[in-house]
Amino acid sequence: MSGRFLVLEGIDGCGKSTQIEALRAWLPISGLMAPGAQLVVTREPGGTALGQALRALLLRPPEGAAPCSLSELMLYAADRAQHVEACLRPALAAGDWVLCDRFSGSTAAYQGYGRGLPLATILQLESLATGGLTPDLTLWLDLPLAGSLQRRGDRPADRIEAAGEAFLQRVSDGFATLAGQRGWQRVEADGPREAVTQLCCSLITEHLGGPGDRGHG
Amino acid sequence: MSGRFLVLEGIDGCGKSTQIEALRAWLPISGLMAPGAQLVVTREPGGTALGQALRALLLRPPEGAAPCSLSELMLYAADRAQHVEACLRPALAAGDWVLCDRFSGSTAAYQGYGRGLPLATILQLESLATGGLTPDLTLWLDLPLAGSLQRRGDRPADRIEAAGEAFLQRVSDGFATLAGQRGWQRVEADGPREAVTQLCCSLITEHLGGPGDRGHG
Repeated sequence: MSGRFLVLEGIDGCGKSTQIEALRAWLPISGLMAPGAQLVVTREPGGTALGQALRALLLRPPEGAAPCSLSELMLYAADRAQHVEACLRPALAAGDWVLCDRFSGSTAAYQGYGRGLPLATILQLESLATGGLTPDLTLWLDLPLAGSLQRRGDRPADRIEAAGEAFLQRVSDGFATLAGQRGWQRVEADGPREAVTQLCCSLITEHLGGPGDRGHG
Repeated sequence: MSGRFLVLEGIDGCGKSTQIEALRAWLPISGLMAPGAQLVVTREPGGTALGQALRALLLRPPEGAAPCSLSELMLYAADRAQHVEACLRPALAAGDWVLCDRFSGSTAAYQGYGRGLPLATILQLESLATGGLTPDLTLWLDLPLAGSLQRRGDRPADRIEAAGEAFLQRVSDGFATLAGQRGWQRVEADGPREAVTQLCCSLITEHLGGPGDRGHG
C-alpha cells in the first residue's frame, strides 16, 4: 500500500500556511483517504528534529554564520535527505497521506532561479536528496510578488525574505517556469481565503481521487 | 600569488591535533613561507562560524536529531563549501599558508568507506563543495586502530567515534586506500611525538620547499 504525497509551493506570503490548515481539517473528512490512513502534515525545511536545527541556521543564522549560496543549497539538501528517509518514505509506505509545505520545487525556485546556482547542480542535489521521490500532486499558490509583500506587512523578514525584491521577483518568476516544467497545478491565490481553499480541494479530488497505488520511486 | 594548502588526515586519536600545534609553531620559522605570508590554522568541520554550528550538529546532535548517512554527507559538504569560499580560497589567494585538520579525504574515509555511501556520490559532493580545490600536500598520520582507541582512553566518544569498532576499522582501511589513490604522504604515527613532528617537517620541506605558484583550481 502506498499513500499520497501532496505539496504546496509558492513565494512567502502566498497563503500556504493558511491553506495547509484548511486542508488539514478537510482531508480526513474528504472521503479520499483510505480507512485507517493518517494525515501527516510537515514542511521543509524543518520536518525533522535535525531539520528544525537546520531551519534555524538557514532562516535566522547566528551573527556571521549566514551560509554562502552553495552551502545554503547543501543545507536544504541535508534537510530534505533526512526528511525523505525519516518522515516521508515511512509515512507513504504505511499508506498515509503527506501534506508538505514546500519540497524540492522551492529549492529550484529560491536557490536556482533566485540565487542563480546552476540548474545542473540543483538537479544533482535534488536527485540525491529525494532518491527519486516525487509528489503525487503539487499545488502552486500563485500570488504576484506585490501581494505577497503586502501580506507580510510588518512581520520581520527572515534571511531569505530579506534578500531583496529583485531576488524575490526572480524566485516568483522561477515558480511560474517550474510550474510549467513540472506539471504543477496553478491555484490563483489572490482571492478570498475560502475560494482558494475550494479550488485546492477541487484539484486534490480531481488528481488524487483515484486508487493510491502509484508507488513513490 | 598563491599560498600553500597543507592538510593532515587520519583516524581520531592519530595525533593530528598535537602535530598541528607543533607545525603551527614551526612553519612560520621554517623559512618556507614567503615574507609577509600568514599561517592560517583551521579545520573541518568547523572552520567557519556556520561550520561551528554544523560541527556541533554532526558530532553532538540534540536528542533525536542524529543525521542519516546521506544527510550527514551533505552537512559535511555544506561545511566544506562554506570553508572553501569564506576561508581557504581567500587565504590562498592572499599568498597565505593554510594548515587544515581534515579535508575531503576524511569524508571519503568516514562517509564513503565507513558508512558505505557510493563512491560516485562522495565524489560528486566533493567536487561541488571544493570547486576543484585540492591540497598541495596531504600528510596521512597512520596509526593502527588499536593504538588510536588506546590514546582516546576514557575521553567520551562523539557520535562518529561511537559508531563502533567495525566502522572505525573500515575508516582506517579507507584512509590507507585513499592515501595510495590520492598521493598522500604517509607518516608513521606510532612513534614518539617529536619523531613524528620531525618526519612531518621533512615531508613539508621536501614537497612544499619550491616556489608556490601552482594555483588552486
